[in-house]
Amino acid sequence: MSNAEPRWLSDEDQHVWRQIIAVINMLPPQLERELQRTHGLSLHDYQILVQLSEHPEHEVRLSDLAEATQQSKSRLSHQMTRMESAGLVTRRNCPTDRRGAYAVLTEEGRRVLEAAAPTHVASVRDHLMDLMTPAQKQVVGEAFTTVANHLRPTGRPMTCPSLTNPDQTPKAAQPSPSGA
Amino acid sequence: MSNAEPRWLSDEDQHVWRQIIAVINMLPPQLERELQRTHGLSLHDYQILVQLSEHPEHEVRLSDLAEATQQSKSRLSHQMTRMESAGLVTRRNCPTDRRGAYAVLTEEGRRVLEAAAPTHVASVRDHLMDLMTPAQKQVVGEAFTTVANHLRPTGRPMTCPSLTNPDQTPKAAQPSPSGA
Repeated sequence: MSNAEPRWLSDEDQHVWRQIIAVINMLPPQLERELQRTHGLSLHDYQILVQLSEHPEHEVRLSDLAEATQQSKSRLSHQMTRMESAGLVTRRNCPTDRRGAYAVLTEEGRRVLEAAAPTHVASVRDHLMDLMTPAQKQVVGEAFTTVANHLRPTGRPMTCPSLTNPDQTPKAAQPSPSGA
Repeated sequence: MSNAEPRWLSDEDQHVWRQIIAVINMLPPQLERELQRTHGLSLHDYQILVQLSEHPEHEVRLSDLAEATQQSKSRLSHQMTRMESAGLVTRRNCPTDRRGAYAVLTEEGRRVLEAAAPTHVASVRDHLMDLMTPAQKQVVGEAFTTVANHLRPTGRPMTCPSLTNPDQTPKAAQPSPSGA
C-alpha cells in the first residue's frame, strides 16, 4: 500500500489466490445450507455453540465472542437474541467483570450442537477434507496456521475470571463436537 | 450424513480444518477493512467490479453475478442499488434474454477498481500470499483447485448472448485488476 509501484501477483500466485478466494466464497454457504436444512442453524450459530461448549462453564464474554466469530457486536447481539429465543443460549452479567454480558450455552443448545455435529462433520469431509490427500492436508495445515496466527488478534482471557477453574481443561468438560 | 456412526475428524484433520475455518473467518474482514478505509469499497463491491471488468462488454447477468459472488439475489439487489448510487455500475435489460437485468461496469466503476487494485493486492500479499513459501503456495493451489471445482455450480454463459464477441477474450478488454 505504501509503494509507488504495485507489486502485482505473478500469474501463478494469481491462480492460487483465485482458488483460495473461491473456496472462501463458496464453502461457508455450502456448509450453512446443510446445517440449515437439517438443524435450522446458521454457520455462525454453529460456531457460537462450539465456542461456548469449549469454554469452562460453557460461557464466553460477548465482546470476545464477537471477536472470535469476526462479527460486529451489533450483529452478534441480534444473533444472540435469535439464539436466545430458540433456547440455545442465555445471557448474563458477570459480577466481577464490568465489561459486559456473557453468553451461556443452555442444555438445549448443547443438545442441538450434539445433534448437528455429525451433519457438520460430514459436510466438512464431503466438501473439503476428503477432497485433499494426506500430504496436501499437512501442507495446507502448516500454511494456514501461519496465516491464521498472523490474522488472529492478540489473545485475551475469554471467560468470566471468577468462574474459570484452572484445573478444568476446556475439552474435558464436554463431548467433543468435532468438525468445527 | 447418511451413516449411523459419524466419521469424526482425526486430531490432525481437526487441527487443519480449524486453521482453514479461522482463515475463512478472519481474512475477508481484514481485506475489507483495508478496502473500506482507502476506497470505501466492501469486499463484495470489489469482487463485483472485478467480475464485471473481466467479462466482454463489462456486463454480467444479475442472477449469474449473485451465483458468482455467492449472494442471494435480494442481497445483491440491495448492493447493486448502493453501487448504482455511487456511480460504479448501471443496470439494463438484455433485449435477447428475458431472464432479467444485467449489471454493467461504468467508467467510474472502472476508475475506482483501478485505483483500489494496488491496495487490494498489497493486502492479499501481506495477509496471505507472502506468508506462504512457493512450495506451500503450489500445494495449496492444487488442493483448493480441486475443492473450488467441487463447490462451483455448473457453468452457464454469464453474458448477454447478442453482445458476446467470441473473438474478444475477457482479459483483452481491460487492464488486469490483479489481486482478485
